[in-house]
Amino acid sequence: MSPGSPGDARVTDSPAFDALSRIRVVLSRPSHPGNIGSAARAMKTMGLSQLLLVQPRRAIDDEARALATNGLDVLESARTVDSLEEAIGGCVLAVAFTARTRELSHAPADVRTAAGEGVAAALKGDGVALVFGNETAGLSNHDVLLCNRLAHIPCDPQHGSLNLAAAVQVAVYEARMAAIAASGRAAVRPREPELAKLEDLEQLYRHFESSLGQTGFLDPGKPKRLMERLRRLFGRAQLEREELNILRGMLTAWDETLARQGTRPPKVD
Amino acid sequence: MSPGSPGDARVTDSPAFDALSRIRVVLSRPSHPGNIGSAARAMKTMGLSQLLLVQPRRAIDDEARALATNGLDVLESARTVDSLEEAIGGCVLAVAFTARTRELSHAPADVRTAAGEGVAAALKGDGVALVFGNETAGLSNHDVLLCNRLAHIPCDPQHGSLNLAAAVQVAVYEARMAAIAASGRAAVRPREPELAKLEDLEQLYRHFESSLGQTGFLDPGKPKRLMERLRRLFGRAQLEREELNILRGMLTAWDETLARQGTRPPKVD
Repeated sequence: MSPGSPGDARVTDSPAFDALSRIRVVLSRPSHPGNIGSAARAMKTMGLSQLLLVQPRRAIDDEARALATNGLDVLESARTVDSLEEAIGGCVLAVAFTARTRELSHAPADVRTAAGEGVAAALKGDGVALVFGNETAGLSNHDVLLCNRLAHIPCDPQHGSLNLAAAVQVAVYEARMAAIAASGRAAVRPREPELAKLEDLEQLYRHFESSLGQTGFLDPGKPKRLMERLRRLFGRAQLEREELNILRGMLTAWDETLARQGTRPPKVD
Repeated sequence: MSPGSPGDARVTDSPAFDALSRIRVVLSRPSHPGNIGSAARAMKTMGLSQLLLVQPRRAIDDEARALATNGLDVLESARTVDSLEEAIGGCVLAVAFTARTRELSHAPADVRTAAGEGVAAALKGDGVALVFGNETAGLSNHDVLLCNRLAHIPCDPQHGSLNLAAAVQVAVYEARMAAIAASGRAAVRPREPELAKLEDLEQLYRHFESSLGQTGFLDPGKPKRLMERLRRLFGRAQLEREELNILRGMLTAWDETLARQGTRPPKVD
């Protein structure tokens, strides 16, 4: 191994490699414990350690432990949670990996670009999650919309389905490559704004929904499409905390103005 | 899948993707048929099809076939040979993948560089092989010396061993990324929505200003800072025409709801 190569221990001293250990891998409703074990191994070899499982269909078993090999500690410290919301709580960037086309969602980035963004965010100290769906069904639209990035692993269109653990492997490999690139950069970084947390974004969307409901602009019977558009817009914009506060303040001002004028159910045309 | 994305059949028309189908994957003395099956799936998803097995320890079995999924044809047309020499016969470039340090060998390239060289050679019509060793022992020094490139998948030096099929997955993924680059197309072609015109953006900002003025949220005496924040936010988001229409509709709905309830100048606290 040549000195200073990515396999060299000295390289891991960089903050970029600490950043990797702050990136979560979230598996939503995985079916096969073996894939969880293989994902843990993939993470460990690339320097990631935070594994979260949302409602795994089966408990971690001997096969999972055998496949984890060196990543056994990652597997055994994996946190099981009840919802994706909980898994990505505290994050400002959640990247949904998908093989499917979704008409109404964020434009997908390729995995290299998404991993680079993830490492950059983690380097700033922000919480980052790489989110993978079930082996058969992938991520639900609901899950995708809880994330603010959509990523795709380029593959042959006719045969385009990677195994779950293989997809995790490619993603964490790209994260490590991004960390290597970042570690080679100058130590001085531009000041970056504080980004909004995902749970605060959820509150914003709920606020939009209730405020717009009062005006009749949002059809309470069919709120979905409008709310998806707003999610896509503000997800893409990567809202800063201060901007989110402005939007919340704006909605509150409308709410209060309507309340002052006597709240009445809106006439829907 | 959006037109022209890598998931689109048209993209695979490029000679770069034909080149992928000319790159061999060679597994030297693999122990576990499951890994052969998973490697076949990884190859198939990335557009490779030539799998060669040098003295596999066990025959292809049901587990291998199950793990191959869409790559079953790659698995079943795999050629078994007696020696690495035979497997790489006719090639001009054979890349040996190794996790270990070797005192006496070529300096290793990282997998991205090696895959790029491989695709470039295959594009010229040259035979190329990506060569992987046994799960436990890796490639022998003898095998490494039969190859003319040494490649390494960057990983954490303390925990640096990828599963065999995972290593194949990363290598063939990098080959596909190199093919995409060679074809001159973006890995994931961005969806190209119709963006809002600047003059329509200006109307949007004026609309925000007048609507927010009614609520008191915008201080009519000092509108500048808030409007600057909104400009920055929506400018960064690169509003689409449709999104702009939604925002205008939203503002109109508030305006009209206020008007229905009797327009009064807002009480500014």
